[in-house]
Amino acid sequence: MKIYFSGSIRGGQQDTDLYADLIRELKQYGTVLTEHIGCKTIDHTLTDQEIHDRDIAWVKESDIVIAEVTVPSLGVGYEIGRAIDMKKRIICLYRSLNGKTSSAMILGCKDLQCFQYSNLKEAIAIFKTNLKAK
Amino acid sequence: MKIYFSGSIRGGQQDTDLYADLIRELKQYGTVLTEHIGCKTIDHTLTDQEIHDRDIAWVKESDIVIAEVTVPSLGVGYEIGRAIDMKKRIICLYRSLNGKTSSAMILGCKDLQCFQYSNLKEAIAIFKTNLKAK
Repeated sequence: MKIYFSGSIRGGQQDTDLYADLIRELKQYGTVLTEHIGCKTIDHTLTDQEIHDRDIAWVKESDIVIAEVTVPSLGVGYEIGRAIDMKKRIICLYRSLNGKTSSAMILGCKDLQCFQYSNLKEAIAIFKTNLKAK
Repeated sequence: MKIYFSGSIRGGQQDTDLYADLIRELKQYGTVLTEHIGCKTIDHTLTDQEIHDRDIAWVKESDIVIAEVTVPSLGVGYEIGRAIDMKKRIICLYRSLNGKTSSAMILGCKDLQCFQYSNLKEAIAIFKTNLKAK
């Protein structure tokens, strides 16, 4: 199974360690195409168009999109929107921060499977219930 | 012409006054379906699914999507992603804040017309050049 993991980059580098933990867990279920999302360094050698075209090609290639949607992000929202039209299975994970949850456009979209979680342990349990180990 | 104006709600209420100014200008070019984006009060009577379904219906109904993409927002990114697959014309406006611009997924997408601007006067000029007065 090919997994497209989506997380905030320019908007939310504060969650990079958590993304890295989630990606490590997801590797039990398939190949994660977007392992760089868990890295603290941003690759500045690619142009915006090269990043866009590579990421959309990866979304197309993937069997499932798993998005961490706690931190507001144009890129994550955009990828979810495109993935819906590609009929991909999409799982969204979000934490409640200061009483705020995720966007109405994400939580209100019945084509997404949205799960609230508080910590890595709970995310691991969500993966276990909803994904098949490879 | 029906205009879908998209701006950050839960993520970026700090820009509401600017959104209201932009919407007022856009009314010279057509009907703005999403006038509430320029209001400081959030309507809590609708469920997330009702908001999602109403907004996606408006994107479908619109002739053009105009998105303010300075503030990171899952909803705005999602709407742009969906609008691309609906083959809508999409204009994105962004300001540079603390040296940060917008997402690579937005700036690198060749299906969007992206314009940087600094203030309302510059946004008005962009509308004048790119839209037809009604």
